[in-house]
Amino acid sequence: MIKTVFIGLFCGAAILTAGILIGHYGIEKSSDSEPAWVKDVSKDVDERLLEEFLSEVDNVNIKDNLRELTKVPHMATTVGDEKTVQLMLKRWQDPESGLDQAWREEYMVYLSFPDPDKPNKVTVVNPSNTVLHTAREKEKAYTSDQKDPDVVQPYAAYSPAGQVQGKLVYANYGTVNDYKWLSQKLNLTGTIAITRYGGAGRGAKAINAVPYGILGVLVYTDPLDINEGLMSDINETYPHSWYMPPSGVERGAYASTYGDLLTPYLAAKEETYRIPEKDITGIPTIPIQPIGFEDAYILICELGGDPAPQFWQGGFNCTYNYGGPGFRPSSHFYNSDVKMDIFNYCEVKNSSNVMGVIKGSVEPDRYVIYGNHRDSWVHGAIDPSSGTSVMLELTRVLGKMVKQGKWRPRRSIVFGSWGAEEFGLIGSTEYTEQYFTKLSERTVAYINVDIAVQGNATLRALGMPSLQNVVFTAAKQVKAPGADSMSVYDKWIQHSNRTSPVHGLIPRMGYLTGEGSDYAPFVHYLGITSLDLMYTYDRSKTKVRIYPAYHTAYDTFDYSSNYVDPGFYTHQAVAKTAGSVLVRLADSLLLPMNCSDYAESLEAYLSEALKHYEDSLLAMNISMEPIKRAVASFRIAATHLDQVIRSSDLANETPLKVRKINDQLMLLDRAFLRPPAFPSKNRHVIWAPIEISLSSFPGLSSAYVSAMSSGQASAWAQVHHLVSVMSQAIEGAAHMMLDVI
Amino acid sequence: MIKTVFIGLFCGAAILTAGILIGHYGIEKSSDSEPAWVKDVSKDVDERLLEEFLSEVDNVNIKDNLRELTKVPHMATTVGDEKTVQLMLKRWQDPESGLDQAWREEYMVYLSFPDPDKPNKVTVVNPSNTVLHTAREKEKAYTSDQKDPDVVQPYAAYSPAGQVQGKLVYANYGTVNDYKWLSQKLNLTGTIAITRYGGAGRGAKAINAVPYGILGVLVYTDPLDINEGLMSDINETYPHSWYMPPSGVERGAYASTYGDLLTPYLAAKEETYRIPEKDITGIPTIPIQPIGFEDAYILICELGGDPAPQFWQGGFNCTYNYGGPGFRPSSHFYNSDVKMDIFNYCEVKNSSNVMGVIKGSVEPDRYVIYGNHRDSWVHGAIDPSSGTSVMLELTRVLGKMVKQGKWRPRRSIVFGSWGAEEFGLIGSTEYTEQYFTKLSERTVAYINVDIAVQGNATLRALGMPSLQNVVFTAAKQVKAPGADSMSVYDKWIQHSNRTSPVHGLIPRMGYLTGEGSDYAPFVHYLGITSLDLMYTYDRSKTKVRIYPAYHTAYDTFDYSSNYVDPGFYTHQAVAKTAGSVLVRLADSLLLPMNCSDYAESLEAYLSEALKHYEDSLLAMNISMEPIKRAVASFRIAATHLDQVIRSSDLANETPLKVRKINDQLMLLDRAFLRPPAFPSKNRHVIWAPIEISLSSFPGLSSAYVSAMSSGQASAWAQVHHLVSVMSQAIEGAAHMMLDVI
Repeated sequence: MIKTVFIGLFCGAAILTAGILIGHYGIEKSSDSEPAWVKDVSKDVDERLLEEFLSEVDNVNIKDNLRELTKVPHMATTVGDEKTVQLMLKRWQDPESGLDQAWREEYMVYLSFPDPDKPNKVTVVNPSNTVLHTAREKEKAYTSDQKDPDVVQPYAAYSPAGQVQGKLVYANYGTVNDYKWLSQKLNLTGTIAITRYGGAGRGAKAINAVPYGILGVLVYTDPLDINEGLMSDINETYPHSWYMPPSGVERGAYASTYGDLLTPYLAAKEETYRIPEKDITGIPTIPIQPIGFEDAYILICELGGDPAPQFWQGGFNCTYNYGGPGFRPSSHFYNSDVKMDIFNYCEVKNSSNVMGVIKGSVEPDRYVIYGNHRDSWVHGAIDPSSGTSVMLELTRVLGKMVKQGKWRPRRSIVFGSWGAEEFGLIGSTEYTEQYFTKLSERTVAYINVDIAVQGNATLRALGMPSLQNVVFTAAKQVKAPGADSMSVYDKWIQHSNRTSPVHGLIPRMGYLTGEGSDYAPFVHYLGITSLDLMYTYDRSKTKVRIYPAYHTAYDTFDYSSNYVDPGFYTHQAVAKTAGSVLVRLADSLLLPMNCSDYAESLEAYLSEALKHYEDSLLAMNISMEPIKRAVASFRIAATHLDQVIRSSDLANETPLKVRKINDQLMLLDRAFLRPPAFPSKNRHVIWAPIEISLSSFPGLSSAYVSAMSSGQASAWAQVHHLVSVMSQAIEGAAHMMLDVI
Repeated sequence: MIKTVFIGLFCGAAILTAGILIGHYGIEKSSDSEPAWVKDVSKDVDERLLEEFLSEVDNVNIKDNLRELTKVPHMATTVGDEKTVQLMLKRWQDPESGLDQAWREEYMVYLSFPDPDKPNKVTVVNPSNTVLHTAREKEKAYTSDQKDPDVVQPYAAYSPAGQVQGKLVYANYGTVNDYKWLSQKLNLTGTIAITRYGGAGRGAKAINAVPYGILGVLVYTDPLDINEGLMSDINETYPHSWYMPPSGVERGAYASTYGDLLTPYLAAKEETYRIPEKDITGIPTIPIQPIGFEDAYILICELGGDPAPQFWQGGFNCTYNYGGPGFRPSSHFYNSDVKMDIFNYCEVKNSSNVMGVIKGSVEPDRYVIYGNHRDSWVHGAIDPSSGTSVMLELTRVLGKMVKQGKWRPRRSIVFGSWGAEEFGLIGSTEYTEQYFTKLSERTVAYINVDIAVQGNATLRALGMPSLQNVVFTAAKQVKAPGADSMSVYDKWIQHSNRTSPVHGLIPRMGYLTGEGSDYAPFVHYLGITSLDLMYTYDRSKTKVRIYPAYHTAYDTFDYSSNYVDPGFYTHQAVAKTAGSVLVRLADSLLLPMNCSDYAESLEAYLSEALKHYEDSLLAMNISMEPIKRAVASFRIAATHLDQVIRSSDLANETPLKVRKINDQLMLLDRAFLRPPAFPSKNRHVIWAPIEISLSSFPGLSSAYVSAMSSGQASAWAQVHHLVSVMSQAIEGAAHMMLDVI
């Protein structure tokens, strides 16, 4: 009996236990199990998927893209440009490897062109008006590409039309100081100045000339600056090498401001108010025209007057005199004028941006924007189609992963194929003007890849220092082109490095203090954290200012595939590096943006500034203490935010906490925008695009230089004012990193 | 045997079932149960707690607050002001009913005062320099309050010092048109103009006079405008009623711009760059001084010349002539001048804001800011201490609930007690300049309660239309003062209503198109959705421009408790209404901000604009189609966002979705800011503070009026430009409401 009872109890207990186990583990708790989204919100970057994505990026596809893009010239708003719009749309709307959506956005923009019926002429005319020499109107053809009828004649966009002539003078780079020096040697009234590219902005060479009564300006690229002195197309220059041939001419926009010139601060739509053309500022008021160095040689080596200073001498095998003014008595051009007949005209034309998006799965209202301009001057194989072909391969691989259901980024990715960049960053600027608030409030970062490859030695990165770390991470996981055992990072640190007080020896990333590509409206106008990536040549081995076919008719597929990136492994490496940065920014739970690295850059800038001008400012009763305090506040706040991040368990805490921190990171650069008080699109107080050789706050340093130069009280007041503006902006940025309340 | 088996199986099954039930429901699933924060993120407003909070708000406490605040005058930066700083800090740092934190923030601000040793004088002097009449320098004392030595002499802040005299003329309100009309009747060179308050801004009365050679300006409050014509202090005015006594003078700031005048766009800290005083714009350049109507009566009724127009006539029992210039021959003042000896001086002084915060529990990085200025001209019982006493009761009740652990708002609440408002919204403006980015990026709404009660008939609300609904909800749950069965809402709709195409008959909420109180920098500079609340008198029964003791020495506790809000039930109703709005904004899961109501207001503005000037603009080749299209886009986008909200289950979906929608709602008003191209602090294109009588877009309407008046091409270009600016801003706002990508 007792045995039966025991057996009964034992069985009962066993059954009960079995029941409990079944009930607890076997059956889904419908009410208490966490909602599906709980896992999603802590989605982070998937390294395995990222590797898979990187392995898919194919150099041959990039090559094929480039071939297609560079079949014909595709200058902004031409038939060739429209072809590229169609290509982008086709790829981005592809059912298997396209994006979620792609569309075009048109703007009516003010462009400048040479007159196809009346080509611009540069001649030497004697007193009887006989033409002694005519400069080439077109670049010499070495391949069929140069024979394409859509190769636009070399010209200076936004140079006014005009017919002028006068004695020739040589004015070095055409900087303010160059003309000033020359004006002390010669009476420049009524002269024509010939200048070389570099040293000053394009339009500045004409603008700087006007006060001296100069009637017109010529520009050429000196072989010393572009070719290590080489000049012969028999065996030295393209098509035998990558060097610029003697008739090669760099085209370009000669405006000082970016964006559509008739609709500042507004999107250039059809019905938008346009300012009167006469009210446009910052474009030349005298004719200016670029020519090849073979013609420059013919002109410069005949000049009279005394030899120009040593640092004005270029690569021609003659002494550069600065002019009598005009040619020397022994010259067959003696007493002759240089004549410029320029027939450029301006008109409003439709330019398109092509936009594509991949919607984010967790935070669709956070954007990572990747941009490249699509328009070229001629075939644009390097500029910009090296970047376009890279972008198309990136979108193909990412698009395919999305279409196959393998991946969707946490945040939204926006691809921007900008139009009319060559005319002054117009497509990207109009975009930022149209969507100003939306972009300011939602954009985590902007990645610009204009020229992807102009050389295959090393990565070159410019950006906000907060992005340094994610660029390093990406560069470490990509193989360097042509170096099996080295990463892009390894190569980079070899070529360009610095010693960080915190990180030790690391590659040197530069800053976006210029207006040279489409990052400018994002950085300076919107205050968005940005990056510009490119592969470039070894600047310790070659002194060329930029790749020698830049903006010429020689920037072709043939040029790129023979002399810049045979095999396209470098294009592939850029695609992988940029792609990895893009995916990390889009997918990381916590934005990979480092405030302490920003603090380090500010401290370096400050240190230089103090060294160079703290005492001068104090002598004018302007203390730099507020900036010192502000940078110190910034450092403390950055350290604090780092600490908050380190002590958090972001994947397991409320998603509103990581969102709060991510917002702090995203909005940091917004705080650096100066108050909306000044009619300038350039508002970022740290990176304000000023040409200044000092490695310090460009805006402040430039104001200091002006004040020292003019000595005027108002100039010093401006310095004082900037100290206040900057210190309050830096303090404002520090506030963004402190506890939110 | 079979029976035993059945019993055995039955018991086994029962035990098994019991086990399953225990295992499923009885034991916590440690791994699968949702994280604690999952419930928190969907926290919504708790109506029960809100009712409890409202029931705690005590009119007697408010009365006691007022008594304490108005013991002595507390003009900005005086000893009395410092006392109020200490009071705020003490209350907000109270261990049982204080806030999480409270502190002060100091600014060094440029203020203007009369010279205590050399009081401003207004006299009538005859040709022999004999003084025939001296206007009162102080207001007459009826209670001990007026005898306080810290009652500042009536003066015009920012009037320059100066000693001038001339023939007197009467210039109505001193508007541009008033002076223009008068200049056609008289040669105004060398005259002194007397004007009445109203019609034009204070400083404008002097600024408008300058082009005509007028040497100085007097200002007074006409009994017709303030007292329904009543004038006698024997039995008609205060202390017998609320009407202004004959020696009463309205003080005020006579600057046209707000914020510290020496540090535009920058926080006025000690080391901040200050512009030279001579570069300040928008303040009078000729002396201006306010006087009481008893003195104005003595002067105006003696004027010579012809009668002024009918609509220039005021409440005196004499005909208002506009002057000979000067007094009429039969007057004992004939041939005499009016002399002004003004000794005002400016200096930089320390003004404090007192800040307090309650940190949000779920979204601490979202702020609801509640502000009131603390400084007064004299005792300031209505302006601003009616609001201060309300704010202190609100913070007491909310603080107590937090300290007792009963409640913590979802979002952070920031209380701002502003200094130096009377001198031009200085404390609040410096605050917005200092924390520009932080505030722009995190502030959901700003609630301003300056004067809480100037009458007890009805609520008066001004704000962005998106807040209309939450104000209605709050008003419905608060009992109207003195009306047991009516709510604040019921009273409101009786006094001021409109018919909405969507809602039918509803109370009329006004717009924040002025610069009259501390909402101005939030609305116009930062673009933050804002609200201003006050209880006021019945404007259908009384024509007074504002409560008659406004800015005089009679704005005292005695005045308020006898004639404005005996019992303080109206103060209590305002506290509850404002408090309810505050809590709803801070606690609601989905921000109670309605885009379709905003669309309705834009459509009404547009309709008025089209009616008034579509044809005139078209005649100048300016089409209003872009604005029509933009308003239509806005409506479509608002409808779409409403639809998204309606079809969502926000409490159960990912918190990042409601965050995304809330960000869209919060940032809507930011999109209305014009591009940072114009050196003006007033950037909100819809509510731009322009004095215009048209019920339409103030900025555009004002530009239209200017262009019609001047006929100049540049004025019409400005209209055209504004059409573009506005339509692109409205389109930008529409974009904020569309799907985020």
